[in-house]
Amino acid sequence: MNHSMIRYVLGAVLCFESVFLCLPMLIGFICGEKSAISFLICAAISMALGILMVIRKPKRYDFYATEGFVSVSVSWIALSIFGALPFWISKEIPHLEDALFEAISGFTTTGASILNDVEALSKCCLFWRSFTHWIGGMGVLVFVLAVFPLRGGNVMFLMKAESPGPSVEKLVPRVKNTALILYGVYTALTVCEIVSLLIAGMRPFDAVNIGLATAGTGGFGVLNSSAGAYSSAQQVIITVFMILFGVNFNVYYLILVRRFKDVWHCEEVKAYLAIILASGLLIAYDVRHFFPGPLDALKHSFFQVASIITTTGFSTTDFDKWPSFSCSILVLLMFCGACAGSTGGGMKVSRIIIMVKTAVKEIFTIKHPHGVKTIKVDGRVVENETIRSVNTFVVIYALLFAGSVLLISLDNFDFTTNFTAVAATINNIGPGLSLVGPTGNFSQFSAFSKIVLMFDMLAGRLELLPMIVLFSPLVWSKNR
Amino acid sequence: MNHSMIRYVLGAVLCFESVFLCLPMLIGFICGEKSAISFLICAAISMALGILMVIRKPKRYDFYATEGFVSVSVSWIALSIFGALPFWISKEIPHLEDALFEAISGFTTTGASILNDVEALSKCCLFWRSFTHWIGGMGVLVFVLAVFPLRGGNVMFLMKAESPGPSVEKLVPRVKNTALILYGVYTALTVCEIVSLLIAGMRPFDAVNIGLATAGTGGFGVLNSSAGAYSSAQQVIITVFMILFGVNFNVYYLILVRRFKDVWHCEEVKAYLAIILASGLLIAYDVRHFFPGPLDALKHSFFQVASIITTTGFSTTDFDKWPSFSCSILVLLMFCGACAGSTGGGMKVSRIIIMVKTAVKEIFTIKHPHGVKTIKVDGRVVENETIRSVNTFVVIYALLFAGSVLLISLDNFDFTTNFTAVAATINNIGPGLSLVGPTGNFSQFSAFSKIVLMFDMLAGRLELLPMIVLFSPLVWSKNR
Repeated sequence: MNHSMIRYVLGAVLCFESVFLCLPMLIGFICGEKSAISFLICAAISMALGILMVIRKPKRYDFYATEGFVSVSVSWIALSIFGALPFWISKEIPHLEDALFEAISGFTTTGASILNDVEALSKCCLFWRSFTHWIGGMGVLVFVLAVFPLRGGNVMFLMKAESPGPSVEKLVPRVKNTALILYGVYTALTVCEIVSLLIAGMRPFDAVNIGLATAGTGGFGVLNSSAGAYSSAQQVIITVFMILFGVNFNVYYLILVRRFKDVWHCEEVKAYLAIILASGLLIAYDVRHFFPGPLDALKHSFFQVASIITTTGFSTTDFDKWPSFSCSILVLLMFCGACAGSTGGGMKVSRIIIMVKTAVKEIFTIKHPHGVKTIKVDGRVVENETIRSVNTFVVIYALLFAGSVLLISLDNFDFTTNFTAVAATINNIGPGLSLVGPTGNFSQFSAFSKIVLMFDMLAGRLELLPMIVLFSPLVWSKNR
Repeated sequence: MNHSMIRYVLGAVLCFESVFLCLPMLIGFICGEKSAISFLICAAISMALGILMVIRKPKRYDFYATEGFVSVSVSWIALSIFGALPFWISKEIPHLEDALFEAISGFTTTGASILNDVEALSKCCLFWRSFTHWIGGMGVLVFVLAVFPLRGGNVMFLMKAESPGPSVEKLVPRVKNTALILYGVYTALTVCEIVSLLIAGMRPFDAVNIGLATAGTGGFGVLNSSAGAYSSAQQVIITVFMILFGVNFNVYYLILVRRFKDVWHCEEVKAYLAIILASGLLIAYDVRHFFPGPLDALKHSFFQVASIITTTGFSTTDFDKWPSFSCSILVLLMFCGACAGSTGGGMKVSRIIIMVKTAVKEIFTIKHPHGVKTIKVDGRVVENETIRSVNTFVVIYALLFAGSVLLISLDNFDFTTNFTAVAATINNIGPGLSLVGPTGNFSQFSAFSKIVLMFDMLAGRLELLPMIVLFSPLVWSKNR
């Protein structure tokens, strides 16, 4: 393994984190908040360490899948540690494991919180929480690739390791340009949302934070009621943008270059929108008696559906009180997730499509054992390699899920809490049901369970392999 | 599709069911119970229909996978209907859907009941419930193959469709002899258990019923307290035999032909026993405060572990009251299941082994993308076909599971009830947690939910494909 290259990537990430930390620091100083100092301290340490690591060029530039996975997982852990320190140093979150939980929840765009009173936080801390969502949503290494001159064997492995979906492709021949396009679209959409919210009369601070958190499909709010206190118009705007940020970003690129036919043929997006429509209507019908009118039921239903399927995790109402059928739909959406190549988490619609097509193919094969039937998505044959990797993903996912539920059940909470806490973290959603429902939070878990859930958040965001590879002796052994 | 051959197989099954129905009828007449008449009526109808269907020889003898799957699923549905009629005609179970649920639960060796008071049933009905477990455990078509002259293309497809596990092999060259050996070992073990229970002082009627229900890893008891009222010695005997019936029957054949080395190399059985040992000890430690002494805790812990992993479903205590950690272990064991080629249900230990090895291989492949690494079980390379079928199994299983939870949640019970009700039926266990826990039953579900759960029981027992193929337009379409 090329350690020097990993060190170099990590250094670059720390330098960028230092720059990111300056934003909440500035806000803190402007608002005259004491916590700004802690951001200054962390930014300084992060920059110093980062420069130490990038000042020496890598010995070799070879870079393969293992290096990609390890760089990404190590970078994300470092990112989380330095992202957590300001909360802890400023004493706004007094326990280190809680601060780390909050930072990981931020970067992984989970939005699960250990805070009982969000509104008690300083503005700089609130902004930092939302900003971690924004950086984590599209990916810190994609950001690095966009603006930092990183040469080497094949830095595409970095993007592959960080970006969600069963197969990550370059939009344009150069990785740097692909990353630039992605961040360009991302920024433009975020600005659109913030402006829309401002026009709809939201306070500027709330609009910026909600905009950043929606963009990353994160879910940290700045009010204790999440999105419940906002006006209907504002909630509808948030719903629309949540859905937009759950779409595969390749589609926006295709729209930009006017390849509308390709957009129309994108099965994943069509399936994603169909699932939202069906779930939203079913739930609206199921909860019609909970609200004064059908429009109200539709608004709340579609908000919750968009929030869960895109794994954002905002809420406008306590859906834990909804009928069992509606809750079951939401739990299934937790696993479904948004489109590959979006900022959303979960298993991704494209994997579900491949899974369903694999099942159909299996039934077909029984009747025609010698007939060759390939699986096609968007009119193109899906490579066996991709199908295999989807299957393995499901297997590893199931094993990690089972193990996590078992470990956190040591805290002796009910099965629904344990099951949905793991579902909400591994899929980067935020709220689950029962004790971790929209009105609850993750503070009641033991430090050990929090560590398990932190691992799940990171593993979920990075789609399992990078985190597992990092802790796998198979990869670290020198020989073979 | 060769319809005449399917008709012929179905006829044979009905003839045999008629013979099976004579057993409870005899018991009913001896005990002077009115319900015996209903068994007589059903036996007569079943025999008449069966003879009508076998009297004409099949037009063609070709027999492939589709015919195997369809024969098996159709046979099991017919078996269940005629198995349910005596309950309904005798009015001991007044609602038809309940009678059908009880019969399917019997044949599929699930042991989930809709009865509030088991002890109110007549002896002939109680015996019939246990006997359906015994027939369903090893399989009715395996029974037909053992004693009925069935020629044709490849009747091995019948056995493959009915027997559990990722790859079903013949023990000896002839299918008939393989089936005979399996039923021989099965009968011998059942007799051993009944005799052991009699020696331990159990009432003969209970001993026979518990023996049959343990053998099929079913779980219907004859007392409202399941196995809770029996003496410690009797409970230990049941524990041991539950574990024995969860072992791959090939192992018993290998012992009979003195291939002890092959027995020793059987990874699945070693893993199965290791899981039982680890789970039993962990739970015993976790529930130590619930019982007067450590031996008592061990006894109850191992009984419940053996009952759940083998998917039998007896209980000696209300484990729904146990700590969350113990409950989580039991829920995971529900999915694990027993060995392939045993009478147990669930996903089977061998599939879990293949899944874990696939995951490890995937991590290895990251470091050595061009290295070929095969998956070995018992020292032999696992064919790609088997790995693929395990992956597809997991995918179809997950889709069916999710759909079932969604559908039964329409009854508006809590998530734990819905989740474990599906887990307990699709894995053929019987009890789950919460409302379907050891002291609850399935009577509170609506008729619609019962139909969903009946489908799950059949799909789980036949390992998904036969039931799905039966309802798949892909297979029934004439062209292509």
